[in-house]
Amino acid sequence: MTALKFEISRTDGGSAARRGRIHTPHGSFDTPAFMPVGTRGSVKGILPHLVRLTGAQILLNNTFHLMLRPGEETIRQLGGVHRFMNWDGPILTDSGGYQAYSLAANNAVDDDGVTFKSIVDGSLVRLGPERAMQVQNALGPDIMMAFDDCPPSAEPRKPQGQANDEDGQEVDARLSAAVRRDTGKKGYDHAARLQVANERTVRWLERCKQAHARPSDQALFGIVQGGTDLDLRSWCAAQVANIDLPGYAIGGVAVGEPFEQIARVVKHTAPLLPADNPRYLMGVGYERDLLAAVLAGVDMFDCVLPTRNGRNANAFTRVGQVRLRNAKFALDPQPIEPGCDCPACLPSANGFGECGLFSRAYIRHLFMAGEMLGPVLVSLHNLRHFQRFMADVRETIGSGGWRGLIERWPVAAPGLDIHGS
Amino acid sequence: MTALKFEISRTDGGSAARRGRIHTPHGSFDTPAFMPVGTRGSVKGILPHLVRLTGAQILLNNTFHLMLRPGEETIRQLGGVHRFMNWDGPILTDSGGYQAYSLAANNAVDDDGVTFKSIVDGSLVRLGPERAMQVQNALGPDIMMAFDDCPPSAEPRKPQGQANDEDGQEVDARLSAAVRRDTGKKGYDHAARLQVANERTVRWLERCKQAHARPSDQALFGIVQGGTDLDLRSWCAAQVANIDLPGYAIGGVAVGEPFEQIARVVKHTAPLLPADNPRYLMGVGYERDLLAAVLAGVDMFDCVLPTRNGRNANAFTRVGQVRLRNAKFALDPQPIEPGCDCPACLPSANGFGECGLFSRAYIRHLFMAGEMLGPVLVSLHNLRHFQRFMADVRETIGSGGWRGLIERWPVAAPGLDIHGS
Repeated sequence: MTALKFEISRTDGGSAARRGRIHTPHGSFDTPAFMPVGTRGSVKGILPHLVRLTGAQILLNNTFHLMLRPGEETIRQLGGVHRFMNWDGPILTDSGGYQAYSLAANNAVDDDGVTFKSIVDGSLVRLGPERAMQVQNALGPDIMMAFDDCPPSAEPRKPQGQANDEDGQEVDARLSAAVRRDTGKKGYDHAARLQVANERTVRWLERCKQAHARPSDQALFGIVQGGTDLDLRSWCAAQVANIDLPGYAIGGVAVGEPFEQIARVVKHTAPLLPADNPRYLMGVGYERDLLAAVLAGVDMFDCVLPTRNGRNANAFTRVGQVRLRNAKFALDPQPIEPGCDCPACLPSANGFGECGLFSRAYIRHLFMAGEMLGPVLVSLHNLRHFQRFMADVRETIGSGGWRGLIERWPVAAPGLDIHGS
Repeated sequence: MTALKFEISRTDGGSAARRGRIHTPHGSFDTPAFMPVGTRGSVKGILPHLVRLTGAQILLNNTFHLMLRPGEETIRQLGGVHRFMNWDGPILTDSGGYQAYSLAANNAVDDDGVTFKSIVDGSLVRLGPERAMQVQNALGPDIMMAFDDCPPSAEPRKPQGQANDEDGQEVDARLSAAVRRDTGKKGYDHAARLQVANERTVRWLERCKQAHARPSDQALFGIVQGGTDLDLRSWCAAQVANIDLPGYAIGGVAVGEPFEQIARVVKHTAPLLPADNPRYLMGVGYERDLLAAVLAGVDMFDCVLPTRNGRNANAFTRVGQVRLRNAKFALDPQPIEPGCDCPACLPSANGFGECGLFSRAYIRHLFMAGEMLGPVLVSLHNLRHFQRFMADVRETIGSGGWRGLIERWPVAAPGLDIHGS
């Protein structure tokens, strides 16, 4: 009995892209898939059935946040994370490691895990491979992630980083501080640190697999680390792929490096992972990143961009982001993106009911006045944007129509260019 | 041609309650009606079509906030407040006076209006009867309120005051300060101040009627002031009722005084207003207040309680408020109120889709974690609570079943008792 079944229904002539469907104990989802992030058991501000209406079929929750509050035992007693948050479809949780390194102050990593101060009550918390499995077994997601060692990137952080946490700017700031701290150390050797992280990641994966108590109804994914060093990526991928698992992920990407680096690492690493299993690129990303990764054979994605940018009045469109606080929208009666079928843009969006058309002028007003409905509307729009994009990508796989895709989604063009298609 | 038509379909044997329907250019609503408050053109955090699904048929918007931001000219150019906020049903706006006195710093009232500092940009703003009409004519609500003089209540403020503004605690604090300031003045005579306010209110109402530019599609309501002095209420009601208008309101109630005082003033004043026109009790209130006022012959209500308390994790139920932050709910799998048909309590609430059941434990978690979805869920529940209550009140009018009503809504019992029914 396996917790996960992956069916590939179509492959692509000119690329490694594949279209398929993943079956879990809580239903199926189409791949390539984009997972909205419900950090603390909630996609910020959006009723879960409305998240589903945007086209999302699977969500990601953050183990780090849920283990600290309300605690995994509370969620287990309440029937697991699906019932807790009212999402009866598939759920994936991360391992908590990334946030333990990046969000928590005073963290200290050693060969058995990481110790950090709780951001909720200041208590000392220990997280390692066995504990990460115990927590995720209690939460009960369909897919759980191995506990890995995720060292700070040596690259400078970008303000628009895709860090896989809803407290985005805070992650960025703390990671930058961690990089400065580590790289400022006398004798700090970033390559050596990456090597240690890689070896730990592999050892910890074996311990995770050993400790995982519910393999028949929860699928454990291994994670490949290695930063932007392709040799380290190759070594790690070979080790991780050697461990029999339902799926494999590429971690440590999009933590500040430019698009070309992300695409280069993904294009190098994805083919090293078993072709018959789902491949998941963690914490990515922009449309161009998603396209480049799909063409490299990646099947699953998650990112906070739709909701995080939505809360900041930044709307995604087919031609790029629109900053709705801009004064030029003060009298603009148009929807965020004419032609969009989200409940903010379309008077009668599919399944949402007769919700009307919200003008750019109105949405700008909501943000200027600090009204909650602004973040709600732009988050809904952005969530729908990424689901529409992924649906179009899925349709395009096997059709040879990639040029047509980027005509419809000019914002994704660099993702195609880098593959030289 | 009149902007408003009021049909009374049923009266009550043992009270002055009446059931009816009010027709406006943007559709009709059943009375007695409870209007949710959309302060700045948004019922905080709730998509307008979901507000409608809670049973609301008419909304209130605050002129004060909308004239300061985005400005009534902006809203007029965008097609009026209905299109602006995506609510195609009836809308009522207040005159802006109440907030100008209570929210703005450094306000100064004289015989022609009030001057205050804008809370948006600090500029000096002038509001008087003519200007209040000009603004509301530009906003375009179906019902607009006369500009009145609303002096601070002499009563001490209650922490659970119903002040008619979403920035509730701030209103409370500022009004308390105003009372202390005024009553602390050497020679300040509260009765004399009320008398002046009353005379101004009547003079200004005549000026409002004169200045109103769209009487054929916007109904102007006059307001009776007079505080808790029944003689002043009588005098003001006689003067106001003498001016031919589509509807009449009772203002200056529920600004801090206890329930018994509210009921006493309403029971005295409502019968003094024309029986063939709608009577509107402004800024009220709790279930007991609504019931007492309905029995006195009031037809319309508005209050911020559902959303303001919802944002603070206070849920209304048939037996009283529940504070969902309470630790005793940490593991409680029940909905806020078993038997409620709101989208937070019922897995498949009417029209809302398959939204699931949100446990008290989950909602508590959302508030503890500072997640926006907490206020959204409890606001939806509270909005539905007040609409269910008003629907039951409407059904009860003419049936003689008031005892049965308070068996179903024990929280409203004092409202019946005060009428000695």
